[in-house]
Amino acid sequence: MSIESVDQQIASREPSSTPHPFDLATAVTRNADGTWRASTSEQYWAFVGPFGGFTAATMLRTILEHPDRAGDPLSLTTNLCAPVARGPFQLGTRLVRATRSTQHWSVELSQPDVGVAAIATAVLAVRRESWGHQPAMFPKVPAFEATPVYRFNEPPPSWVSQYEFRFVSGAPGFDTKAITPQSAATLVWMGDHRPRRLDALSLAALSDTFFGRIFQMLGRVVPFGTVSMATYFHADSADLVEENATAVLGAADGRSFSKNYGDQVGELWSPSGRLLATTTQLAYYKA
Amino acid sequence: MSIESVDQQIASREPSSTPHPFDLATAVTRNADGTWRASTSEQYWAFVGPFGGFTAATMLRTILEHPDRAGDPLSLTTNLCAPVARGPFQLGTRLVRATRSTQHWSVELSQPDVGVAAIATAVLAVRRESWGHQPAMFPKVPAFEATPVYRFNEPPPSWVSQYEFRFVSGAPGFDTKAITPQSAATLVWMGDHRPRRLDALSLAALSDTFFGRIFQMLGRVVPFGTVSMATYFHADSADLVEENATAVLGAADGRSFSKNYGDQVGELWSPSGRLLATTTQLAYYKA
Repeated sequence: MSIESVDQQIASREPSSTPHPFDLATAVTRNADGTWRASTSEQYWAFVGPFGGFTAATMLRTILEHPDRAGDPLSLTTNLCAPVARGPFQLGTRLVRATRSTQHWSVELSQPDVGVAAIATAVLAVRRESWGHQPAMFPKVPAFEATPVYRFNEPPPSWVSQYEFRFVSGAPGFDTKAITPQSAATLVWMGDHRPRRLDALSLAALSDTFFGRIFQMLGRVVPFGTVSMATYFHADSADLVEENATAVLGAADGRSFSKNYGDQVGELWSPSGRLLATTTQLAYYKA
Repeated sequence: MSIESVDQQIASREPSSTPHPFDLATAVTRNADGTWRASTSEQYWAFVGPFGGFTAATMLRTILEHPDRAGDPLSLTTNLCAPVARGPFQLGTRLVRATRSTQHWSVELSQPDVGVAAIATAVLAVRRESWGHQPAMFPKVPAFEATPVYRFNEPPPSWVSQYEFRFVSGAPGFDTKAITPQSAATLVWMGDHRPRRLDALSLAALSDTFFGRIFQMLGRVVPFGTVSMATYFHADSADLVEENATAVLGAADGRSFSKNYGDQVGELWSPSGRLLATTTQLAYYKA
């Protein structure tokens, strides 16, 4: 066996040389008619359907891998209409409008037996250097390395195991059964369980990794489902390569819970203190 | 002349009995083929196109007046693709998916000479009583009546005159030419110039009445355009009738401005202290 082939063998054992589970799960293939196909993943499964971050990222991927794509995501809105059933699904991805520097896209996810299960819209842009300022302040938190990895008491849904959570505050106290509402605020270091450099796809998915604010406020798990979520991207591809980070500090909170629907606002920070993305969502709950 | 007809005459002079300019401007008519038509309004004009809040509200109105509509808006996302030209425009409004309690809609706004100028998605739901909580705190501000009406130094775009602004803090200091960035935060009482009871349509429009955060930070007006905006509704029709308010306390801020794009987060509060809606947007700027 030559030294070269030994080197290759060693290299093949390096995690970075094998496809990442997130990329395998969110892989999309273009059909001859211009539509796309993909499939749900057991590894990113939630309660009655895929983890919403999987759905958002897979829809975004059809745009990013589209031959007409120009620029990086500025915003992504995903409306989850119905649970995606286990198995293959179709994606209709359309460049609605292109201007000199921006692209407006829409995506529709459907299955024969389900119908339309999700729709998304996205804006992409080629971003250039300009005056800049970050009014938001990086929260005061211990470093990623100094924060212990969170262990769940009960086996969580499979998607949870695809991530690593290091709660600074607002860890899921699902068994506390609080009488008065507890704070909806959380600070948590989080990233892919197998480290993967952050990109727009993983930021879209990480926008949905905060656990339901309602669980935290009530101290128990109740029927819950995100109906609309948005991610605003404050860093482009080049910025993210420069950051070279595999985890974010996530800051989440909720502002109003009324008549079965509540919101979530979130920030995704790089360890260097840069605000990479902000996210909002509205979710159904039964309580 | 009978007493009855005199009463009718008096009644006809009451502001509340004549159509409100906002309702006239955002009026939509359904075509025989199921599409809708509407027209831009000189009264709600901005720099190179209509005020974005006009566009969002007009698109939402096609959903609310649609014969298949059920429930009230939970969320509305409007992506502004290109300036709408003065004159009539078409709206393609589609019920993408309906479940037991929710409806998912999409709207496309187009003009023959412009193409697609805006797209929107919305989620509607019939909301029922449930456990509720409002973690967000009403800002400490003087009452609406105690806050003076703001007078603009320069004649503003026409849409601005359709509203009344009473700044508590963060008034547009467009001529301060600040060297260092000023705060992006604003607290402002605002409502239709001719009072109109708040509904989902006006909340959608009021989501865009905050002036560009970038103007405030720089102390001057620069080229600017919203590309994507979202409103989350925390009150349904019945709640809004109960509030019976014609003005909101708006709280806006910005978190990141980089490479020509910056964000805005906003809250719209009723005078009674209820969070009626929250809003986010991403906007282009040149600076």
